[in-house]
Amino acid sequence: MGLVVQKYGGSSVADAEGIKRVAKRIVEAKKNGHQVVVVVSAMGDTTDELIDLAEQVSPMPAGREFDMLLTAGERISMALLAMAIKNLGHEAQSFTGSQAGVITDSVHNKARIIDVTPGRIRTALDEGNIAIVAGFQGVSQDKKDITTLGRGGSDTTAVALAAALDAEVCEIYTDVDGVFTADPRVVKKARKIDWISFEDMLELASSGSKVLLHRCVEYARRYNIPIHVRSSFSGLQGTWVSNEPRGDRKVEQAIISGVAHDTSEAKITVVGVPDKPGEAAAIFRTIADAEVNIDMVVQNVSAAATGLTDISFTLPKTEGRKAIDALEKQKGSIGFESLRYDDQIGKISLVGAGMKTNPGVTASFFEALSNAGVNIELISTSEIRISVVTRADDVNEAVRAVHTAFGLDSDSAEAVVYGGTGR
Amino acid sequence: MGLVVQKYGGSSVADAEGIKRVAKRIVEAKKNGHQVVVVVSAMGDTTDELIDLAEQVSPMPAGREFDMLLTAGERISMALLAMAIKNLGHEAQSFTGSQAGVITDSVHNKARIIDVTPGRIRTALDEGNIAIVAGFQGVSQDKKDITTLGRGGSDTTAVALAAALDAEVCEIYTDVDGVFTADPRVVKKARKIDWISFEDMLELASSGSKVLLHRCVEYARRYNIPIHVRSSFSGLQGTWVSNEPRGDRKVEQAIISGVAHDTSEAKITVVGVPDKPGEAAAIFRTIADAEVNIDMVVQNVSAAATGLTDISFTLPKTEGRKAIDALEKQKGSIGFESLRYDDQIGKISLVGAGMKTNPGVTASFFEALSNAGVNIELISTSEIRISVVTRADDVNEAVRAVHTAFGLDSDSAEAVVYGGTGR
Repeated sequence: MGLVVQKYGGSSVADAEGIKRVAKRIVEAKKNGHQVVVVVSAMGDTTDELIDLAEQVSPMPAGREFDMLLTAGERISMALLAMAIKNLGHEAQSFTGSQAGVITDSVHNKARIIDVTPGRIRTALDEGNIAIVAGFQGVSQDKKDITTLGRGGSDTTAVALAAALDAEVCEIYTDVDGVFTADPRVVKKARKIDWISFEDMLELASSGSKVLLHRCVEYARRYNIPIHVRSSFSGLQGTWVSNEPRGDRKVEQAIISGVAHDTSEAKITVVGVPDKPGEAAAIFRTIADAEVNIDMVVQNVSAAATGLTDISFTLPKTEGRKAIDALEKQKGSIGFESLRYDDQIGKISLVGAGMKTNPGVTASFFEALSNAGVNIELISTSEIRISVVTRADDVNEAVRAVHTAFGLDSDSAEAVVYGGTGR
Repeated sequence: MGLVVQKYGGSSVADAEGIKRVAKRIVEAKKNGHQVVVVVSAMGDTTDELIDLAEQVSPMPAGREFDMLLTAGERISMALLAMAIKNLGHEAQSFTGSQAGVITDSVHNKARIIDVTPGRIRTALDEGNIAIVAGFQGVSQDKKDITTLGRGGSDTTAVALAAALDAEVCEIYTDVDGVFTADPRVVKKARKIDWISFEDMLELASSGSKVLLHRCVEYARRYNIPIHVRSSFSGLQGTWVSNEPRGDRKVEQAIISGVAHDTSEAKITVVGVPDKPGEAAAIFRTIADAEVNIDMVVQNVSAAATGLTDISFTLPKTEGRKAIDALEKQKGSIGFESLRYDDQIGKISLVGAGMKTNPGVTASFFEALSNAGVNIELISTSEIRISVVTRADDVNEAVRAVHTAFGLDSDSAEAVVYGGTGR
């Protein structure tokens, strides 16, 4: 029996009852002979409440102080969780990100982990303790300031600790039963995936699947740490994410892992761009300088008569204003006719390593969309993913049609079990 | 213009409005040319809410984790305060107790400061920042664990930082206008004291005055740091506590500084103790081993006929149960007849260095009580204090009578100005 890292999200520790329930589960793992390290998020809505407070005192809270504020949330949940475990008769110690040796760069509010030195955690474990670690936070290498890792940061903390401690597995406890072949709120017949490769999980994560964030999976892949995503409300096996299926459970890799969708993006089309070298570079340099992240990029064929072309790209709706402003400012120097902004789009992605060796997948995908009467506006592909942009209104229908066409539907409409509040 | 340490209590930063008001006051001090270090407590009832949560998950929260939990409160208030100051266009950085170099022993929940190494604070000040420091917390020297300083700990943090930084003054902002000659809720004509010596303040603090705690004043006296207690709700001068009146404001030391009272204590009488050497020692060793703090001790004259005597002492009501249990357990080995427990007592203390050279003070004190029809049950004196125990019901009347008898009443009944909520 080796070392296990468990991560519990805010909905699992939303109140005193939740904390006591999670404490029991942790003690079970300890009783089964594991060394246990637990990463915990802030309770329920604590982080949102702290953000509210910050906005009341300052319209633009500063990075360093904002991180100091937000990290109070995990400090509360981790201390309470340690108390609850002690109350069950087991030894537990809680550690801040800094105490746990989570060393980051100095980019406040979205710091990156650059090293993990879990000496204190190791000592606590060797002394028989369960170690509770604050998720989402670290300490900057140069200035020794408190930092936060950004959205989904607690998952990354868990995987990073698992890597540094050479854990057997990193268990991510959440309020759903695992990773599904599609969003169960949209596709009633979505199936829980028993095992999925890191590569496919990375593509799902970057295509709109919310269960695991991209950077967390990326970290786990780099250090080859198996992730087990499962519900904190049930005792069921969840989804294993790893390089290959575990030896004792022979699982064949599916051709298609799942269908992801995303309606959080908008599309900007730069109309009438002179079709000459350097134009695209000028546009995307402008976007990058404005610190806007973009997703898909498509350039239409130039109309020979005019020598002008259109370039479209997608980006988070929240960054739309910033991108438009930046481009308008450079309109003269870049040289384009106009900008079109469209936030009524949706993206559907089909993910699966099997498509590399199954040439019919792309055709089947487009046929399924066509049969469902869904019009395709943009197409973008990677080796193991096909994504299309459609009208936002068509997304749910499109996801269901594709899910059925690729034989992903479960036999029973009852297969999907929600354990928690569904948050 | 030198360095000023300002401390703001929880009622001064109870909500976003309070934080913005305090931020303005801090910026004023900075604009006046001071280097400013601010020590802040947790917002309003935050600490009580955290204690509630802890009790929900564990009936006996453990020391280390309890400290980790409670310190989240100051982390929130200090980060918000720094944001509010930045929003006013001034640079501010917040620091945890650990970051500020507040080194303590390892006694969780009531740690003692053993060193202050404010290197990061000094750097922040030199770079033009206002430094905001979490009150009430430190880090243990041996284990590097987060500790808390116990009740009133933020005042001690402020004084300790003032000493380590060689500050001109430590300003303690609260919701009253300063230290009064008696509790203004009991004595309407109580006067604000302009200046009081460390010695008299120490006696007032240990006699029931709640404005400053004993250990904070003790620390200030040891390092000779003047304390200025004042309201965060008004711009008025408060009470200066120091070795001697400040040069520019000639204040004569009053014969009597004030009248304090305390109804939080109980009295235990050990009845029928053999009047022989070692008996008192056995009783108070038993009490000490139970970690109960006692206050006054009085032994009545032995009745020669029986060879038995009674020993009475006072202690916090909250520790009464513990003391009784400890004594009952040792009844056989100590050898006494019975215990009497009385929690309906009050203590009135008259404090003033002038009584050393004014022999009539004691007599006048007892006469005042007698004229008010107050019966005295126990008497205890120090060089600059006389304390008596009476019935709890008599305390308020006794305090008013003594206050008047020593000429402490202000000329106007309107002299007492409450700025805040009166908490």
